[in-house]
Order: sequence, then structure tokens, then C-alpha cells
Amino acid sequence: MAKEKDFVKEITPQSEDFSRWYIDTITKADLMDYSPVRGCIVFKPDGYELWEAVQRELDRRFKETGHRNAYFPLFIPESFFEKEKEHIEGFNPELPWVTEVGDEKLEERLAVRPTSETIFGYMYSQWIQSYRDLPVLINQWANVVRWEKRTLPFLRTSEFLWQEGHTAHATAEEAEHETRQMLDVYTDFVENELSIPIIRGQKTPSEKFPGAIATYSIEAIMKDGKAIQAGTSHYLGDNFARSFNIKFLDRDNERKYVYTTSWGMSTRIIGALIMVHGDDRGLQLPPRIAPTQVMIIPIGPAKTRERVLAATDEVFHELKSHNIRVRVDDREDLSPGWKFNEYEMRGIPLRLELGPRDLDANQAVLVRRDTGEKEVVPLSSLTERVHSLLGEIQKSMYDRALAFRTDRSQPAETIEQLHDIVRNKRSFALAGWCGDDICEAKVKEETGATSRNIPFDPPQVMTTCVTCGKQAQYTVWFARAY
Amino acid sequence: MAKEKDFVKEITPQSEDFSRWYIDTITKADLMDYSPVRGCIVFKPDGYELWEAVQRELDRRFKETGHRNAYFPLFIPESFFEKEKEHIEGFNPELPWVTEVGDEKLEERLAVRPTSETIFGYMYSQWIQSYRDLPVLINQWANVVRWEKRTLPFLRTSEFLWQEGHTAHATAEEAEHETRQMLDVYTDFVENELSIPIIRGQKTPSEKFPGAIATYSIEAIMKDGKAIQAGTSHYLGDNFARSFNIKFLDRDNERKYVYTTSWGMSTRIIGALIMVHGDDRGLQLPPRIAPTQVMIIPIGPAKTRERVLAATDEVFHELKSHNIRVRVDDREDLSPGWKFNEYEMRGIPLRLELGPRDLDANQAVLVRRDTGEKEVVPLSSLTERVHSLLGEIQKSMYDRALAFRTDRSQPAETIEQLHDIVRNKRSFALAGWCGDDICEAKVKEETGATSRNIPFDPPQVMTTCVTCGKQAQYTVWFARAY
Repeated sequence: MAKEKDFVKEITPQSEDFSRWYIDTITKADLMDYSPVRGCIVFKPDGYELWEAVQRELDRRFKETGHRNAYFPLFIPESFFEKEKEHIEGFNPELPWVTEVGDEKLEERLAVRPTSETIFGYMYSQWIQSYRDLPVLINQWANVVRWEKRTLPFLRTSEFLWQEGHTAHATAEEAEHETRQMLDVYTDFVENELSIPIIRGQKTPSEKFPGAIATYSIEAIMKDGKAIQAGTSHYLGDNFARSFNIKFLDRDNERKYVYTTSWGMSTRIIGALIMVHGDDRGLQLPPRIAPTQVMIIPIGPAKTRERVLAATDEVFHELKSHNIRVRVDDREDLSPGWKFNEYEMRGIPLRLELGPRDLDANQAVLVRRDTGEKEVVPLSSLTERVHSLLGEIQKSMYDRALAFRTDRSQPAETIEQLHDIVRNKRSFALAGWCGDDICEAKVKEETGATSRNIPFDPPQVMTTCVTCGKQAQYTVWFARAY
Repeated sequence: MAKEKDFVKEITPQSEDFSRWYIDTITKADLMDYSPVRGCIVFKPDGYELWEAVQRELDRRFKETGHRNAYFPLFIPESFFEKEKEHIEGFNPELPWVTEVGDEKLEERLAVRPTSETIFGYMYSQWIQSYRDLPVLINQWANVVRWEKRTLPFLRTSEFLWQEGHTAHATAEEAEHETRQMLDVYTDFVENELSIPIIRGQKTPSEKFPGAIATYSIEAIMKDGKAIQAGTSHYLGDNFARSFNIKFLDRDNERKYVYTTSWGMSTRIIGALIMVHGDDRGLQLPPRIAPTQVMIIPIGPAKTRERVLAATDEVFHELKSHNIRVRVDDREDLSPGWKFNEYEMRGIPLRLELGPRDLDANQAVLVRRDTGEKEVVPLSSLTERVHSLLGEIQKSMYDRALAFRTDRSQPAETIEQLHDIVRNKRSFALAGWCGDDICEAKVKEETGATSRNIPFDPPQVMTTCVTCGKQAQYTVWFARAY
């Protein structure tokens, strides 16, 4: 028994087994637990708190760009799915169906939503009559369900939490602009709040959203070299407008179909946050998203305790009054050393140690989670230094992740090279592609890597198709992916 | 067609048909729409915004009392429900069942959660080992489903949004304290943020939550004399602990069952807010919960427009910088009169009019939504006056609602009197009750009124049972209810 407990407490090194490291870390940091419902997890308070921080920052950006929140039904009638053929084919195998209520069979089966284009489409057809009703800019925070065969906490769960934006516009140009704008919003959020550098681009046709004209994605590299699609923004053209008959009377007195978009980011972003920044000691949270930015740990012998706690309290209130998210761990039954390890494992960006000798010298000790660097700071300039250090950590975490990605990105001329890059070198491969689905499928079959996206801004242009050797139409990032 | 449109735009007077008034108001104020899924509504942006305000204020209070948020699965295995017999009997007829995924039948049916005591119970049995793990204080913001035969927007919908707190404690006393504390939190929120006076008390056994030892509720009276249960807090004793085997090793080295509570408030509170304060002109929102507290409307002829808009902008920024939620409607194609009506209908607490003559006199006009009172205020003291007026409106809306309730509360000595009070006088009836379920059921059968609760603090003590005339054990509020 004791051995089992010790085992659970230890984190497997990343180099030994990355998947094991991931599960150990999220378990030990108490972020989630498995539930008795297949493929569904419980988001425990420390994990859910990360989602609340994501919500806060995204929601602010959505509102700043003119969107408003609403809430649409969880259930979608079966007939709705059949209105968009590509859409139903894409989601059908993963749909849970409600067929009965109490002891009564329903006349029409209800799907538990995997995404809400269809029901938004139906309502928009009721709401939109005139050009004056446009644009409609709505976001929804909700749970969605896609029954997955293989699941991984945060990254792929049968039920997950997300936001889904659904907008309708008078022109294709305006809808395309919205699609790109929301990709910009996601980019800004992920790069600046989460310190995760991302690759922006367009999905290949085989990887796009079922029913979309174009899907744009932001992709990030994890420490094991695999990719995570961190967010997507879809330009739906008038596909859903035609399926749901969403028409408006334009200024020129003609009835026209609207153009729609949808875009989403989910709780899988928490998985990305962990896999991009975590190390063998556990989590590492970027200061701007960290629920707790500074953990104060009073130290020293019992006889100085009262004096130290008084000073701790003062520092706590001083930092808090400057909007720094700070906590104190003054539990007496746990040693400072235990606490140091604990909060390193939990990824808190800064540790602040305060002991009697520090007080004698009017100073405190700050320790960075990212580098382990220790710094002695005069109490008089503590708040200022904490502020600037949090900024430095935020930036340095981004720079480190960017350097890692640069290091793990290589061009591939042949499928053998691509295989070597994604499997042995655990890297992203940049390759040319002729545009033929068969060539793309062959890469997946032979290397396990999928096309991530066609980047807006490739580091170099690849001229021949990595599979068939013909002229390349596109330069594509390939990677193994979660 | 034109006639139909006009009809939709008009609000039926409350005195003519209160139900019709309610539907007209929420439709015209654009708070919701009916959805194609039976009994489910769409919470449109203006309606959802009210829920966001409720969430913000409740969430803050939950966190201040030491609770943390988490998220548990939507689906609950059928076997879980069967572990608590009273619980399954209470919810069974309303449960939607997922029986298949894609084309495959599930081995065990999954209920879409109507409430989450069972799955919290299961997880708590995994998490709680020792007295050191207690208390567990978790809240969840979620959607829940109870298939309702008769639905009414916000008040009773098949899917609704709510929060559900689930806590576990080492002792019965501590759990009872938590149950009452959360009732206090609800009371504080509803009375102080929503200006709704409430009656606090305990539910009779026939009205309590299935599986609870005791259910406490807060009840409010609507303008048609009917009651709404605005929030409930349940003391579950060790019922769920026994069903789910939630045990802990106590300080005395004995393994004991925990004591649990649960408590919830839902989107029906939005219905209460509307029905308590609304009038024939539409909504009335208390300032503290109103998404927009002040609407600025520039007035005057075209030639003074530029000057007025500049001043409007200044006032807007001044108020905003003092954390007043303010908006400007400077649309040129709509008349000031139209705007006055529009924002009265939408319930915005204060209107601020600004025209060229006001500017000449260095003043603005403030108009209260609740009383219609107009007031001329010097620009130099505008912010101060807006602040104090918002406070006055908040209080005066509460006072008015309290006066209404006092006026609509009467003691009933006999069932005939009770019938007259609840049906003809559209009031709450205070009556004695012997404690026999049969007497309580008879009141419902003969008058349509249900027992609301046994108030903690009845205005008078009733000594004989309103049904059988025997010695009363309890003084109970009866009312027709939503």
C-alpha cells in the first residue's frame, strides 16, 4: 500500500515517458479525476480554476470585439442534423442520442450537442429578416459531447467545456473578416496570456470542419513534439444559411442568404498549457493566467513565528492591494521545504520566502519557478520587483517555448525524412503538398503525422510534394497530434 | 400582418392578464425565444446578461464563504440513481435517457443530470478518507434537465441553468450550519441585489427535496399574488453518505459517515425578478443587478448635435470612470420619445437626458424608471447624484415590493378563508397546520395552493389546523405557486 501511495506521488520524468509524466502531473496537482462515466472527467477545483481564468480572458476579448453571450438548448432534434449532409456525416458516430424520457419513447431522437451550428442556424433564420438585423455576433459558453473511443484528460474527453461563437453577416467579405479576426483574438490570448507560441494557418480540406468552406487553426507544439490544435475559426460561407434558410432583405430590396462563421476554444487548451510549460517538477503556469501568482511562505523557528507572520500579513496585503494574486501558506505542521516542492509542482510562478533574518535586513527572498533563480529584494521595492519579475517570467516562458519550437521544426523533402522528423526527432515537419487528398492520406498512413495547417507565414516555401514529388501547391506543417 | 406586428409590440396590462403581460414583456424586451426543442428556450443576449449578473454576484459570495467551483459530468449512470430510492422516485418521470451513441446501444442507460447529488456522492466517496479532507466545499455552474409537462420561460423549462453546491462535513452540526449559511447567502443576494423581499423557512416533508432530511427555501410573492421558490438549501444528513459509502477516519480513529448538503439557485430567479418589479410599461431592473444602470439620451435639433454629443461623451466617460454601468443611445434615426419608451420597457433604472438648453444651464435631466420622477441636476454634481439615486431606487424598489407583500399576506382560520385569500385576493395565506400530510394535500386539492414553507419568523402564530381544526403544530405559508 505504502509503495502504491509513493508511486502516485512521484512524477515520471518527461524523458522516460511523456504520457505518464502528463497523467502523473495532472493527478498530483489535483487538476482532475476520472469519472464513472466513460471518457468523462471531473474538473476538480484546481483544474476548473484554470478554465475560469481562460473564460475571464477570452470573454473580455469577445465582448471588446462586439460579441454578446447567449445560451441555446443542449438537445438538437435529429432532423436538424440531416439538413447539412457533410455536417451529420462528420459527427454521426460520436453522437449520444436521447431516445426516451421517463418511461416514454420520444417521437424524434434528440442529439446531445457536439457543436451548435444547426440550432443557431435555425434560430437565426427566425431572427434575421433585414440587413438591419446584421451582423449577429453571439458566443455561447457550454458543455458539448463527442463520444470518443480513446480519451485523454483535458485533451480529448467525451464531454468537454468550450465556447462557440456563431455569427451571421450580410456579405462574404464581412464573414471572412470575422473568421480571421477571431483567429487573431485566439492568437493574442494564447500567445500573450498563456505564453504559447502558435502557428496560424488554414486546414487542408480533409481536416476542415464538416460543413465549412474554410477552417483556420492555431497549432502549438508540445514538449514531446506532438501538436495540439488550440483553437479553430470556420468560415461557413452560405452553407448553413442555405440548409436553414437564413435570408435577409438587403438594402437593394433583394432577399439574400447570410454568410456565417463559427469559432471555438475548449478545455483542451488546459492540456496544451500543461504540456508546453510543465517540467519534471510538475506544472509551470504563466503569471498572467496563474490563479495564484505569488505564494508567500513564512520561515524560521517557532520563537520568531509571531513576528514573521505579522510581516507576512503586511506583505500579503501590500501585494494584494496592487492586484497581484497572492496567497500565504502559514500552516505550521508542514515544513518550508515541503511547501517549496509543493508549489513548484503546482506551477506557481513566484515563491516569496520571509524569515527573521530577512526581516532584520528589511528584505525578502523571491524564487522563480521557471528558472529557479533566487533573488534578495529590499522590502521597500518588493511590489515593484514582483510586478516586473512576473512580466519577465511571462516573456521568458514564451521565449523558451518559441526556441523549443524553432529547434523542433524541420523541412522534409521526402516521406522518409518526414517520418524521421516526426517520429525520431519528435519535431514538426514542413513539407510541400501537391493538393491531392491521396498524398496527404499517405503521409498519415506511413508516418502517423497529420497535416496541421497551411501556415499563413511559412519559414520557407517547399516546392515539391513530399509524397509524389510533383510541383507543390502548398507548404504544410505535418506533425503527430493529440 | 401589420396588425399582428402591432399586437406583438404592445404589452398586455397586468390587470387584464398577468400571464400574457409576462410573455409580452419578456418577448418585447428580447430576453428569450422559444426553441424547436420542446420546453427549452433560447436565452437571448439581453436575458443571458441578467444571468451573467446573477452569476457574478452569487459566485463572489460563494467564494467569500470558502467554496470553489468544479465541473462534474453531465451524464449519470442509471445504477447511481437507484442507490437513493427516494431520490430516483422523485426524479424518474422527468429524466431524459441516453440509450445509444452513433449506431450502438449503450450497455447502461445514462440520465442527463436533473441534479448531481449522486455523482458528487460517488466522487466524494473516492476523495474523502480522513477528517483532514473535510469539509469539502464545491459549487458547480451547469445546465440541468427535468422534462416538464407544462413550461413557462425562465420559470419552468426542460433545460435550465443553475448552480448547485455540494458540501461534505465531519459532523451533522457543521452540515446544518452550512445549510443555513447558504440560505443566508441566497437571502442576502436576493434581497440586496434583486430588491426582492423573501420569506425564509423550512419546507414541509411532502415538499422537500427527494433524499433530504430538511429543505429550506426562500419564497417571494409575484405581482399576481403567486409564489416563486427562489432558492433552496438542503440538509441531507448522512443519507447520500450511506448510499454512496462516503466515510472518513475521524480524529478518534473511527470510520464515520460524512454529512452532506446541497443548495441551488437557477435561471428561474430571472422570472421572479421580472414578475416582482415589472409594470405595464415593461421591465424594471434594480440598479445593482441591471446590466445598464444609466442610459444617456442626447436631445435637441440637428444644429446643436455636435455640441450635445461632445458633452454626452464627456458625461459618459465621467460616469463610467466611477464604475457606473452606462450607455449612450445616439442613433439619429430614432426620436428621443421612442428611446424613452424603449428603455423604460427594458427596465433601465435611470435615464439621463442632455440637450442644448441643459448645456447652457450646466445641467442634465435624470428620470427614474421606478417612479417616473424627473430631476434637474447640475453637471458638477452629476456623478454624485447618479450614485445616490441608484441607491435610492434600489431601496425604494425593495420597500415597494415589501409593502406589496405585506398587503398581500393574510391569516386564514378555515379552508374557505384560505381559498378566498389565495384565489380572490391573490394573496399569501398564513395558516395553522397539524402536521398531517392529508390535511396539507386537502388544501392543495381544494384551493390550488401549496404549502410554501414553515417560516422561521412568522408574523403571527396560528394555533389550529386550517383543514381539520385540531391543534396546529406549525404555522405555514400557503400560496398558489409557479
